[in-house]
Amino acid sequence: MKVLVINCGSSSLKYQLIDSANETVLAKGLCERIGIDGAITHQKAGGEKQTWQMDMPNHTKAVSYVIDKLLDKEVGAISSLDEIDAVGHRIVHGGEKFAKSVIITEEVMKAIEECNDLAPLHNPANLIGIRSCREVMPNVPMVAVFDTAFHQTMPKKAYMYGLPNEYYEKYKVRRYGFHGTSHDYVSHRAAQLLEKDIKDLKIIVCHLGNGASVSAVQYGECVDTSMGLTPLEGLIMGTRSGDIDPAIVSFIAQKEHISAEEVINICNKKSGVLGLSGGLSSDFRDLAGAAQEGNELAKVALETWAYRVAKYVGAYAAAMNGVDAIVFTAGVGENNTAARAEVCSYLNYLGITIDDAANQKRGEEVFLSTPDSSVSVMVIPTDEEMAIARQTAMLVK
Amino acid sequence: MKVLVINCGSSSLKYQLIDSANETVLAKGLCERIGIDGAITHQKAGGEKQTWQMDMPNHTKAVSYVIDKLLDKEVGAISSLDEIDAVGHRIVHGGEKFAKSVIITEEVMKAIEECNDLAPLHNPANLIGIRSCREVMPNVPMVAVFDTAFHQTMPKKAYMYGLPNEYYEKYKVRRYGFHGTSHDYVSHRAAQLLEKDIKDLKIIVCHLGNGASVSAVQYGECVDTSMGLTPLEGLIMGTRSGDIDPAIVSFIAQKEHISAEEVINICNKKSGVLGLSGGLSSDFRDLAGAAQEGNELAKVALETWAYRVAKYVGAYAAAMNGVDAIVFTAGVGENNTAARAEVCSYLNYLGITIDDAANQKRGEEVFLSTPDSSVSVMVIPTDEEMAIARQTAMLVK
Repeated sequence: MKVLVINCGSSSLKYQLIDSANETVLAKGLCERIGIDGAITHQKAGGEKQTWQMDMPNHTKAVSYVIDKLLDKEVGAISSLDEIDAVGHRIVHGGEKFAKSVIITEEVMKAIEECNDLAPLHNPANLIGIRSCREVMPNVPMVAVFDTAFHQTMPKKAYMYGLPNEYYEKYKVRRYGFHGTSHDYVSHRAAQLLEKDIKDLKIIVCHLGNGASVSAVQYGECVDTSMGLTPLEGLIMGTRSGDIDPAIVSFIAQKEHISAEEVINICNKKSGVLGLSGGLSSDFRDLAGAAQEGNELAKVALETWAYRVAKYVGAYAAAMNGVDAIVFTAGVGENNTAARAEVCSYLNYLGITIDDAANQKRGEEVFLSTPDSSVSVMVIPTDEEMAIARQTAMLVK
Repeated sequence: MKVLVINCGSSSLKYQLIDSANETVLAKGLCERIGIDGAITHQKAGGEKQTWQMDMPNHTKAVSYVIDKLLDKEVGAISSLDEIDAVGHRIVHGGEKFAKSVIITEEVMKAIEECNDLAPLHNPANLIGIRSCREVMPNVPMVAVFDTAFHQTMPKKAYMYGLPNEYYEKYKVRRYGFHGTSHDYVSHRAAQLLEKDIKDLKIIVCHLGNGASVSAVQYGECVDTSMGLTPLEGLIMGTRSGDIDPAIVSFIAQKEHISAEEVINICNKKSGVLGLSGGLSSDFRDLAGAAQEGNELAKVALETWAYRVAKYVGAYAAAMNGVDAIVFTAGVGENNTAARAEVCSYLNYLGITIDDAANQKRGEEVFLSTPDSSVSVMVIPTDEEMAIARQTAMLVK
């Protein structure tokens, strides 16, 4: 079955055409600056990379353009629109309504819209992606795969904040968590590699990319995760602050004479290792280079980042009263050997010993821990698009 | 040496007269509603409790009144003002200026005032307490003991937030931590009871009162603590939310049409277990009673509270790459056997085993862990006033 996976942002459209039978990527691409002058589309199919400049006034035009390019005889990947058997949409926020992926109906779209409040930047864009695809491919079944769904198994003690209960009742203020598709995929893959039933395992997944979150997966179910109502909470990220004293929001607003929303915007876009490094970079390679050249802020940024990850791993070991496996994934987790080594340096007390040679590997499945380590430490590259394609194919079949 | 310990709030004055030689409390009392109609003073001296109603227009009058009562021939504790050898003031925020207690001079008072911004409710009141005492006892040496001082040994990776570095440079936005006098006292006492040098120990102190914080004390120095720029961050407390997604501040402000400061006020005063229980109570005994009678919100409040404490213990075990002793202190930590048991129920993975009979004890120094437990778990009643008196006497001598 050929599945088109769509990840639609407010002015962008990421896509992958995946053959779910043999799990191969037939084509992948990205349209940028939709609705803005100078839109660009990048596509890779059959080993060839193409870039086109072509203005796209809206997402429906972008979807049409993508279909044209997928059908292109020279650089495309399919010869007829009928070859697309299903579309899988990445949806950021499913609120409490969606604990798993679903076939998209009018009712589902309404329910996604009702979660707009919880993800005002993402859900409306995701819905535009769905509507545009339905316009261009009215007869193709579509599936919504939610970033929040995997975390819906969390118990109340993990998802309730210490806030007046009425905010939960009235506005559904609670921890939701994100990157669920990745945490789901990686934790199940870890069980396979360990040759154990996931129902017997306590797994901590560290999804460390530009956005980053940790989850505690006990016996196959997520029991806690570091992102919260929004993707701002938890770890220090590329540009996001993660946890801070909530009183800082009003403190900074007063000091800088800006609104609380502007402070939160800064917490999302100008903070994290970018902010800690004094605006140097949100890229860990840049920071490592600067730190090596003696840049003190870059050094502190990296240390503070790793320390926070280690503390979350420690917290989730307590949350599950133990841990069998710790898994690193996503850009930094898969490739940054120094960052992994630093996080692990805090964890010997769990009986963890790391094989330094194994930790030199990048971007592939590997055990970092030595065979006698009491906890398995692994790298498992995540593949959210493949996971979305898999779930889409399963539901459509 | 007789030391008068003063803890001055905006409309209250707590005091204890302590003989530092034999560490006995000669008198203790509390003036409430200073500057408000209907001020009340409670005092206990020589085993007798007294209550007086007497309006106090300001703190200087309150200090004079307290001195009168301490000198009272029938219910007092001293026969001459000369018997008071020193005054020790509890000061909430010492910023980065004070890493230990100091003799109060004009310069010190100025430096405390410079920290007003960081504790706008507390430091100005503390300063009023100092000024009032200097007016009434101009020749008595006075010492400032800071709630933040013990935590000043934290490394940057623990005290920096993932925020733009300029906020640290311009406004000193960082983690400070509070309850330092208690964490200091309790961690040192733990080393004594373990008959070990504190320089060889990794200790986690859980100060669990209506306000609550956890600290990681490695080799005698605080390396991390759960409260932050303000006492709002960290654990779920009686009325304080502790950690939340910072984006919730602006989310609630928008939904409720209130300012960010009002949200923070709610996070401080109407949240915590009080908020989680739907406004039922901030008192753990009330909540336990309600939970037993089937109140679901009270049950969730207590579970969520304990779970958060356990996660911090886990996080700090990672922060120090191990832990030798975990200590419970303050009201809930010293007396609430069920809460202690629930926190410990998460920690078997650290090799902890609890002696259930020992855990029935309240308000006294006791080992909760069995002799074969790999980590010692203890209860050590805190005594911040005694610690303040001790430090005051040491500096004045």
